[in-house]
Amino acid sequence: MNPEEEKRATPSSSPVFVHNPHLDVMKDDVLYHFALGTATHNLPAMFGDVKFVCVGGSPWRMKSFTEYIAAEIRMEDPESEYPNICAGTDRYAMYKVGPVLSVSHGMGIPSIAIMLHELIKLLHHAHCEDVTIVRIGTSGGIGLEPGTVVVTKKSMDATFLPKFEQVILGKTVERNTDLDQCLAEELLQCSKELNQFETVIGNTMCTLDFYEGQARLDGAFCSYTEKDKQDYLKKASEAGICNIEMESSVFAAMCKLSGLRAAVVCVTLLDRLKGDQMNGSHEVLQSYQLRPQILVGNYIKKLLKVKAGRSCNSATV
Amino acid sequence: MNPEEEKRATPSSSPVFVHNPHLDVMKDDVLYHFALGTATHNLPAMFGDVKFVCVGGSPWRMKSFTEYIAAEIRMEDPESEYPNICAGTDRYAMYKVGPVLSVSHGMGIPSIAIMLHELIKLLHHAHCEDVTIVRIGTSGGIGLEPGTVVVTKKSMDATFLPKFEQVILGKTVERNTDLDQCLAEELLQCSKELNQFETVIGNTMCTLDFYEGQARLDGAFCSYTEKDKQDYLKKASEAGICNIEMESSVFAAMCKLSGLRAAVVCVTLLDRLKGDQMNGSHEVLQSYQLRPQILVGNYIKKLLKVKAGRSCNSATV
Repeated sequence: MNPEEEKRATPSSSPVFVHNPHLDVMKDDVLYHFALGTATHNLPAMFGDVKFVCVGGSPWRMKSFTEYIAAEIRMEDPESEYPNICAGTDRYAMYKVGPVLSVSHGMGIPSIAIMLHELIKLLHHAHCEDVTIVRIGTSGGIGLEPGTVVVTKKSMDATFLPKFEQVILGKTVERNTDLDQCLAEELLQCSKELNQFETVIGNTMCTLDFYEGQARLDGAFCSYTEKDKQDYLKKASEAGICNIEMESSVFAAMCKLSGLRAAVVCVTLLDRLKGDQMNGSHEVLQSYQLRPQILVGNYIKKLLKVKAGRSCNSATV
Repeated sequence: MNPEEEKRATPSSSPVFVHNPHLDVMKDDVLYHFALGTATHNLPAMFGDVKFVCVGGSPWRMKSFTEYIAAEIRMEDPESEYPNICAGTDRYAMYKVGPVLSVSHGMGIPSIAIMLHELIKLLHHAHCEDVTIVRIGTSGGIGLEPGTVVVTKKSMDATFLPKFEQVILGKTVERNTDLDQCLAEELLQCSKELNQFETVIGNTMCTLDFYEGQARLDGAFCSYTEKDKQDYLKKASEAGICNIEMESSVFAAMCKLSGLRAAVVCVTLLDRLKGDQMNGSHEVLQSYQLRPQILVGNYIKKLLKVKAGRSCNSATV
């Protein structure tokens, strides 16, 4: 490992950054959509050891990921009790096992953005350092066999540009959607070692809508033809876009701003060039949804082993 | 009632419109995020009698609304069993009692848009007619006493314009966000008769973000001052904006396109001119959240009574 790689792999205590001077003068901070707060909860005691955060749309999936990762890292609760830390609300669900926090984020940019604002503040209040965050999700593929896992290189908007537009006081600000390329490569390598399913690195389009916004022909409204759809998806493919989902751009932008090492790992549930409806069998779709969990679970296990063994052959946490 | 009012009040069987020629040639339709479909469920038998749809962000709130409305319209299940019709997924929750359907929609425009596409198709497949839909939600008020209920006149974007921008094949299309003014007035009148809490009609700003997008000072990131925030909210107030939430614009646009008689009824949980944090007591915030339910529940009860009595003194269903 050369010195540059080593520096990347063993960061010297990178804290989670908030960029808000107003927080310093607040007496306490209510994380409303988590039903947590600095006055009511000891956040450093609850979360200070967090090194990995996995987020995904579905609360059920995040609970099942917690059960899975607990077994993988040998930290199972013998009674399989993983209480929802956000039980005081139904906006998001949150589970923790050892250094791994799992949080659901609902569907779409606004929903994940609310969660990330409060998560970043939570990690900041808890004095967490050197945190890696991965979105494990589902997506529609473009020209890929269903079940393929895509690790996102760049998150692009509906015009195939790698940016996220944040509206602040009515004015639009562009934010960078770069993800950690080193982490993406490590995840790809991990998938090769696992050798259970196809994984690729590619660009991901992030849209504000599932139907018209993704050129689907099966929404309540549709004003375009099959050819229009195919032309649009072909242009997306030419821009290196491998899959389409609805959260990656703001996830990339906010994680970059806050210094979190971030990746997006989504399985494709269908090939959008061949159809729009999710009519695969329940069992097949469920098995596809496990793939990002298996990949990220394996990655976490590997890093924790490295840490325990104090080896320097790979990134440490 | 003059002839014009009567025509509005007793529409001659208005169906729920989809605008998508591709649906006609589909063998069946999977409503993926509801875990329902035309091949697997008898949608006309399950939903053909629906006349009211109430939607709100939180699954818990929609379940509690169903229990409340069941008692109000004397259709209680003696064992209080109201199964979640979408139990096969955790994306949305759906409950039905008599002609009243309640559906959760999560947070933000993309999340409610997915739900509305599938709801509009569901009502279309079930051959529903003369459907009224109301979003019952929470919001931040501008210069209103917390707990005030706002019935939306126009839904405006973050630049105070009454429009919704839908991206289709990478191009932005503007959609009208008009809501049914007659329905808004009827809801206001109903609140006056109830006389339990303050209700106003006003414009509602719909944003893509809860923190920076609503000029909050308490997010993970904030690059503006208290004065910038106050100036922005003052301009919003000058545009007739009474409250801020995150779903009304696409709700108004999609309901208008599909011929649904629609209203947005949101309680204000705080006065944004005085603060950003939701630090009211749990009990007080909970009691505020009941107000849109009480108002809309009372409105539905009134209409059903009118229908049962075949009176023409008010709108019928």
